[in-house]
Amino acid sequence: MAAELTADQLTAQHRPTLDQALEAIRTRAYWSPHPEHPKAYGEHGSLDAGAGKAAFDALLGTRLDLGQPGTDDWVGGEVSPYGVELGVSYPHADVDVLLPAMRAGQPAWRDAGPELRALVCVEILKRISDRTHEFAHAVMHTSGQAFMMAFQAGGPHAQDRGLEAVAYAYAEQVRTPGTAEWTKPQGKRDPLALTKEFTPVPRGIALVIGCNTFPTWNGYPGLFASLATGNAVLVKPHPRAVLPLALTVQVARQVLTEAGFDPNLVALAAERPGEGIAKTLAVRPEIRIIDYTGSTAFGDWLETHARQAQVYTEKAGVNTVVVESTGDYKGMLSNLAFSLSLYSGQMCTTPQNLLIPRGGVATDQGHKSYDDVVADLARAVDGLLGDDARANALLGAIVNPDVKARLEAAAGLGEVALASREITNPEFPEAVVRTPVIVKLDGAKPDAEAAYMSECFGPVSFAVAVDSAADALELLRRTVREKGAMTVGAYTTDPDVERSVREVCLDEAAQLSLNLTGGVYVNQTAAFSDFHGSGGNPAANSALCDGAFVANRFRVVEVRREA
Amino acid sequence: MAAELTADQLTAQHRPTLDQALEAIRTRAYWSPHPEHPKAYGEHGSLDAGAGKAAFDALLGTRLDLGQPGTDDWVGGEVSPYGVELGVSYPHADVDVLLPAMRAGQPAWRDAGPELRALVCVEILKRISDRTHEFAHAVMHTSGQAFMMAFQAGGPHAQDRGLEAVAYAYAEQVRTPGTAEWTKPQGKRDPLALTKEFTPVPRGIALVIGCNTFPTWNGYPGLFASLATGNAVLVKPHPRAVLPLALTVQVARQVLTEAGFDPNLVALAAERPGEGIAKTLAVRPEIRIIDYTGSTAFGDWLETHARQAQVYTEKAGVNTVVVESTGDYKGMLSNLAFSLSLYSGQMCTTPQNLLIPRGGVATDQGHKSYDDVVADLARAVDGLLGDDARANALLGAIVNPDVKARLEAAAGLGEVALASREITNPEFPEAVVRTPVIVKLDGAKPDAEAAYMSECFGPVSFAVAVDSAADALELLRRTVREKGAMTVGAYTTDPDVERSVREVCLDEAAQLSLNLTGGVYVNQTAAFSDFHGSGGNPAANSALCDGAFVANRFRVVEVRREA
Repeated sequence: MAAELTADQLTAQHRPTLDQALEAIRTRAYWSPHPEHPKAYGEHGSLDAGAGKAAFDALLGTRLDLGQPGTDDWVGGEVSPYGVELGVSYPHADVDVLLPAMRAGQPAWRDAGPELRALVCVEILKRISDRTHEFAHAVMHTSGQAFMMAFQAGGPHAQDRGLEAVAYAYAEQVRTPGTAEWTKPQGKRDPLALTKEFTPVPRGIALVIGCNTFPTWNGYPGLFASLATGNAVLVKPHPRAVLPLALTVQVARQVLTEAGFDPNLVALAAERPGEGIAKTLAVRPEIRIIDYTGSTAFGDWLETHARQAQVYTEKAGVNTVVVESTGDYKGMLSNLAFSLSLYSGQMCTTPQNLLIPRGGVATDQGHKSYDDVVADLARAVDGLLGDDARANALLGAIVNPDVKARLEAAAGLGEVALASREITNPEFPEAVVRTPVIVKLDGAKPDAEAAYMSECFGPVSFAVAVDSAADALELLRRTVREKGAMTVGAYTTDPDVERSVREVCLDEAAQLSLNLTGGVYVNQTAAFSDFHGSGGNPAANSALCDGAFVANRFRVVEVRREA
Repeated sequence: MAAELTADQLTAQHRPTLDQALEAIRTRAYWSPHPEHPKAYGEHGSLDAGAGKAAFDALLGTRLDLGQPGTDDWVGGEVSPYGVELGVSYPHADVDVLLPAMRAGQPAWRDAGPELRALVCVEILKRISDRTHEFAHAVMHTSGQAFMMAFQAGGPHAQDRGLEAVAYAYAEQVRTPGTAEWTKPQGKRDPLALTKEFTPVPRGIALVIGCNTFPTWNGYPGLFASLATGNAVLVKPHPRAVLPLALTVQVARQVLTEAGFDPNLVALAAERPGEGIAKTLAVRPEIRIIDYTGSTAFGDWLETHARQAQVYTEKAGVNTVVVESTGDYKGMLSNLAFSLSLYSGQMCTTPQNLLIPRGGVATDQGHKSYDDVVADLARAVDGLLGDDARANALLGAIVNPDVKARLEAAAGLGEVALASREITNPEFPEAVVRTPVIVKLDGAKPDAEAAYMSECFGPVSFAVAVDSAADALELLRRTVREKGAMTVGAYTTDPDVERSVREVCLDEAAQLSLNLTGGVYVNQTAAFSDFHGSGGNPAANSALCDGAFVANRFRVVEVRREA
């Protein structure tokens, strides 16, 4: 078929963006082509706030027909954490039909080469970016994130992570040239001379298993890394967060078609309630790559059983902040209060354990006892969330009943320093909105250890009293080693303690934020600059994004002949 | 301790070599800093032929004390395939002492950074290169390779593969800068500004499990890739091929000491007969990386059970050459005859199945029937090996009784087109030297399939009659997909057949050599240019050497703070 989107057009439009992304991952300076501000949209073909909302509303109650082969049923049933029934239905696939259809387009996609594949991916991201307002509502009403967070994390930040993966995938594939002339001297005899051709080839079909809380942010890196390296990609969304990924698949299929490729290179695998198709799909021989974000139990299951595939997992972890001393007590408290509150602590990067010496903490406002620090932090959270409108904008909604149950149970684990409050969301009265709970625990007590050494996903933090900075560091080391961590934070003005914290993080491969007191938070990472996870502790076996995340999604085949 | 080898000295001496290696892996043009000709040695501190032989002779019957902690016994007992008892004994380790000792030096090695680590590795390789003549005898008398092959493959070619791994490891680690300044605009407010520090950190202790046939060539890539990325490396040689790797460990320990690092960053794990320590070591929690070359059974065991480690395996495969047509019949026959004879077919890259249409082959010398081609190939092998001296120089010795038994059994699998002959080695009368056997099989017969669809490691090839070129390609595809292949060869003058062979190799991720008729053979690959294996079919899960081979041997830890 004649491509509506030619390689020349794509090059002219997107090669500069790709080049900037390549430069950004090299320098790791700030960069993003995707505006963060809602008002930046509405021109150059992008939807503004009203149009985005209207587009989202128009989706409700409809059947999203992606034109996929092997569609044997229609499934759906998402209910927003804000109470809205989405009523969207999606194709249910007969995978024995869909998977072969997905393979059919792979040779042409492989033969397109790394640059054209990257440019097609950038076009997909551009179209998604233009619909950021629409996606924001889709993310909000599946994850329970408040609108602004759904807009930013589910929109530009997710698009950034996708583009970052495209850049890494492109760079990795072009490290080996397409062709080489090899001439080996043989003394007085004629040299040996070979012509060599090198082709990146895909592994097969990649499976993306999406999560409930960050469907796009956590889904895009694997999706785009696999697609840009020549693989077809099957997207299996979380049953409660289908819409954002279904829209993504729809855009990808449209762009692939326009660029002259088989749309079945990207497909959706929505499921019936309780069907559990991830387990079935994960061990299909056609599936050669899996990206997964979710529970440790299922991540471990995938790593153990999906042996035919490269498996990239982000699982549970226990994130720690060491509070040893600070030169900006107020800044520390407000920074921590924000970190604990954002999206009701439902981020894999939210701090859970705050390790505070029972002898207290030296600060610019004098010595603060353990009790002082905990009470002041509780007050800081209260202050931050005192206004219901602001609280709603920060907290979002509790994503599912399990989180609510954990939150309610947490109060029984120790002395409650800050009780969780219910907040009413006037726009969405059915939303379950809760402020975080802070529970005091004695680090030396074995029964407390059972609590603070397990991930308690949601708005629950433990203020763990430790004997000393050294004790805190030992507990930090043990926590990261045994439970994993996506993030570590530390507050200290003591160079020795800082060195020691850094040493623990280097030893245990944990990403460390030091003395954050301003507008950057330990639970946020920026694409092109920060690594999300390290891939070196039990919380995740890969990082977003580095060479290791992309290098094994393709292989290089050499064809050599005498010159 | 004061380093005798300073970073400045190492930079002056080896940075140019590293830079050339980095350029070579980028262009994949011919390059090597390690001379192939035995007469090139003897100056600039390197041992000439006589000194190398004398050094090797002086090792015989001695105890190789590496000064390793936790040495609880001395073990040895290698007998050369040429009949010589080496009589060298090696330290046997109490791993509960040795492993902790190996970890002690890791922080300093990590803190040295990618460049200094790479330069220390280049110095190790330089010292090994200087002793190439000595290593050649050690490789010869453990692998059974003839001297010249032991010299080249065990010396410069192995060193090239080691240096290639160092270059990839270095390049991978410096893709992320050591530090970055990140400044994010905030409209009218002050920008957010962070200082970020990025440190490549090792995974832990790497285990190299050596093989009998190519102890250095197959051992060096993993050893140097892991060491250059900051890991300590424990080398577990094959019990019949300890000496070349023990000498390697000795050199590495010496250089590490001189450069001011802990020698225990590299250690040897020799074993008692039947001890099978690879299985024990492979699942130790300290072991985080494993490189293995050997049987599919143990490779699969490692991939299944050593879940705490990154496992890189090269296992068995069935290599195919498709003979469809040729414009240089004589060149094809002599090229194939050499490939089948070299080291008695005891290479993982030696062709096993020659697929020949039963209707014959078009050549520059007219049409040749299946029987003609097989008979002419048999004659070519006979001619190549007709002179006993040349035969000994090409064939080497049979490495172990299993290979001899397989060779003897092969004659019963079908009609013998070329019988294996015994050759006497006048210098080493105990050596088992055999010419290859070529057995005719009908590709359509199920009982033949059992033979040609299994790896028959050693000097055994099957001339498999197929119905057509299309039939050959289908069998090639099935063989690679089900059994794996390190190499594929094809002879064809038909552009359609060439396209189809290439397509099969791209689909199944197999490395293809087309129409080789001169002095390059399908079983040989050159470091810095050719990939050894693809990592994309069952013969190996990684290739030597690419980004994927090194990228997951370390992780990057970020420490960020407000600027």
